[in-house]
Amino acid sequence: MADELFDAVDVIRGKRDGHELSDEAIDWVVDAYTRGVVAHEQMSALLMAILLQGMSRPEIARWTAAMIASGDRLSFGELGRPTVDKHSTGGVGDKITLPLAPLVAACGAAVPQLSGRGLGHTGGTLDKLESVPGWRASLSLDEVRAQLADVGAVICAATETLAPADRLLYALRDVTGTVESVPLIASSIMSKKIAEGTSALVLDVKVGSGAFMKELAQALELARTMVDLGTDAGVRTVALVTDMSTPLGLTAGNALEVRESVEVLAGGGPADVVELTVDLAREMVSAAGLPGDPDPADVLRRGAAMDTWRAMVRAQGGDPDAPLPMARETTVVPVPADGVLTRLDAMAVGVAAWRLGAGRARREDAVQAGAGVELHAKPGDTVRAGDPLLTLHTDTPERFERALEALQGAVEVGPADTPVTARPIVLERITG
Amino acid sequence: MADELFDAVDVIRGKRDGHELSDEAIDWVVDAYTRGVVAHEQMSALLMAILLQGMSRPEIARWTAAMIASGDRLSFGELGRPTVDKHSTGGVGDKITLPLAPLVAACGAAVPQLSGRGLGHTGGTLDKLESVPGWRASLSLDEVRAQLADVGAVICAATETLAPADRLLYALRDVTGTVESVPLIASSIMSKKIAEGTSALVLDVKVGSGAFMKELAQALELARTMVDLGTDAGVRTVALVTDMSTPLGLTAGNALEVRESVEVLAGGGPADVVELTVDLAREMVSAAGLPGDPDPADVLRRGAAMDTWRAMVRAQGGDPDAPLPMARETTVVPVPADGVLTRLDAMAVGVAAWRLGAGRARREDAVQAGAGVELHAKPGDTVRAGDPLLTLHTDTPERFERALEALQGAVEVGPADTPVTARPIVLERITG
Repeated sequence: MADELFDAVDVIRGKRDGHELSDEAIDWVVDAYTRGVVAHEQMSALLMAILLQGMSRPEIARWTAAMIASGDRLSFGELGRPTVDKHSTGGVGDKITLPLAPLVAACGAAVPQLSGRGLGHTGGTLDKLESVPGWRASLSLDEVRAQLADVGAVICAATETLAPADRLLYALRDVTGTVESVPLIASSIMSKKIAEGTSALVLDVKVGSGAFMKELAQALELARTMVDLGTDAGVRTVALVTDMSTPLGLTAGNALEVRESVEVLAGGGPADVVELTVDLAREMVSAAGLPGDPDPADVLRRGAAMDTWRAMVRAQGGDPDAPLPMARETTVVPVPADGVLTRLDAMAVGVAAWRLGAGRARREDAVQAGAGVELHAKPGDTVRAGDPLLTLHTDTPERFERALEALQGAVEVGPADTPVTARPIVLERITG
Repeated sequence: MADELFDAVDVIRGKRDGHELSDEAIDWVVDAYTRGVVAHEQMSALLMAILLQGMSRPEIARWTAAMIASGDRLSFGELGRPTVDKHSTGGVGDKITLPLAPLVAACGAAVPQLSGRGLGHTGGTLDKLESVPGWRASLSLDEVRAQLADVGAVICAATETLAPADRLLYALRDVTGTVESVPLIASSIMSKKIAEGTSALVLDVKVGSGAFMKELAQALELARTMVDLGTDAGVRTVALVTDMSTPLGLTAGNALEVRESVEVLAGGGPADVVELTVDLAREMVSAAGLPGDPDPADVLRRGAAMDTWRAMVRAQGGDPDAPLPMARETTVVPVPADGVLTRLDAMAVGVAAWRLGAGRARREDAVQAGAGVELHAKPGDTVRAGDPLLTLHTDTPERFERALEALQGAVEVGPADTPVTARPIVLERITG
């Protein structure tokens, strides 16, 4: 301890008293925490001080750099085509990564999508893909490189060696009430994305009841912070702030969302999923600086994205033609009244899907591939009392009761003449 | 964990977001931390949130009550005379408890002074008394009662069973940068004093370079908070806010301060020590509501306080006639110039005494009985270049160098005609 550059209490007191932390202090405290020299109770006090006192742009950049420096930094410079990745802050029914990664690869980019699993009501991309029979999430770095070269797109589990300090910090924040800090959220996301070695990045920052950020101002702040971090680190970064007041598409749940994604790749699927997929693909193509200015809408129409999807699934052991798992039991929630559906709350649907078995409460829980919620109408649609509004899917019917509880008050039907203004999906665009 | 009334993260988030904690939440979190259900990293995050967001008067009272409820609550109602105690927030050369406890006992009160050891530059009452040959700090509760009945005054170590939650919390605050919070300081001090069972309490809140509180506004806030806490708990509580810009008396160090205390009890001693001892004694006599309205200045003059001191020392195994330990080595710091001493910084003298061996850096360190600093002049005195200003005492002369470093810049001598306005010792008086 005598050889340490700093004293943890001095660093904590500095931030507590509203001072800017020096580069050296940030480097030290992140490294020393990873080494176990700074105790959990010291780091949690510092995190609370950061949450309440904030961090400046240079502090956030350094904090992110220190987390990156705690592990490996990948590079895909040898591929001969530009790399571009996408990150969503998470929403209900957000399966966009599934059609998007093969679509952007089909446009000519390499898409190294290193993902996580879901915790809570928003679901995880890996959980969704694992409902495809045979598909595996864990690849070696050599396998990732080979697949990027051959297929152009990889969706797989992030290796343990990317930003290990973030893993430690995230677990600590989860139990100490220090999750909801824009600097800490931004640095957590961006440390992994920058360490992953992508040269361009498009962020989908969700806002609304089903998202982590409930207010537009918070979402804009997070988007701006992350775009600045990416830009400062030499990654061409753009953020779209998008609506998450109602679920995206017509499904929330693992296999249900894969099915819907395949519909989109086949040229169908719900309009909002298609729109957001194409909007994000255009941003990624543009950020990657692809030659020939390919239009993702054309590429999707031509079926090239579906070909890449099939190759991507196969390369990871999956069978794209195998039937997807279905839940053993379903129950239908009917429309309560004639009129226009004015509200279908994203959070309620997310929690219902989670309680049906689509998500996990603890990291070690398993998820049900077939569980989830299917929507038969979206806000703005004319509906008739007694028609099916939602179908709930689960293997364990004792879960229906608590899922239905989550849906209490989530649905509103207005008179038939209620004027409906279509809410745009993309609310704001933030650039570096 | 499933049977717990609250979730620690919810409690942390409530305070973090500026909400008032409910009585039930406070009771639970203090108790659950003591039981080990709330983890150190969770409590430190909560403490940082309390430090930055504050606590209301009812919250502080409940937090204090929860710490008291974690252990025993004593009562000395059977003594047949009123109990009154004093607490100082700590200053350099603050030996006032030594003459004060026997003086107030000689006035007719029972003084159960359960004390701590020093950590840092201010020294501890028990460390000072342990320089009296034979004296022991640890007494059983029966011994405390018997001595209060026989002698009237006890200065001894607080038992481990008084407010154990405070002991845990204090150790945690020390390593997490969460010491400097008025609600947490006030509740820490007052939980022990209220649990001790005194019916009246006089607080000496120090302010100035040598004190924990550097600014008058802070000291007043702490004094007001503690007086409110005592009053709300049914303890008649008064606080004096007193100056600690220069050391109290002419000595800082364990045996050196005992010697000076005995001089005061014998009718001599430095004027400021006598003045503050008598001022505090008057407050204690008044708060205790002693019959006959005894004047502590008279009692001191008559030698009755000295008799009680000797009885008190003897009752705890000490020999009041034994010579006090002397340090093996001394060195003199001369007056730098002719003129008037305008500044002799309390913190510098405190740190010098500490580095000479009078205090400890870690809880497990031993202290030197003879080490410390002796002053030969005080601010306002006319001084002559080359005359002795300070004598430094230690058993380990290699410590002189760092002690002298601490004194750099601590002394200022002005021209002979510098007007000197005597700074009062007692700056403010706060009542319930």
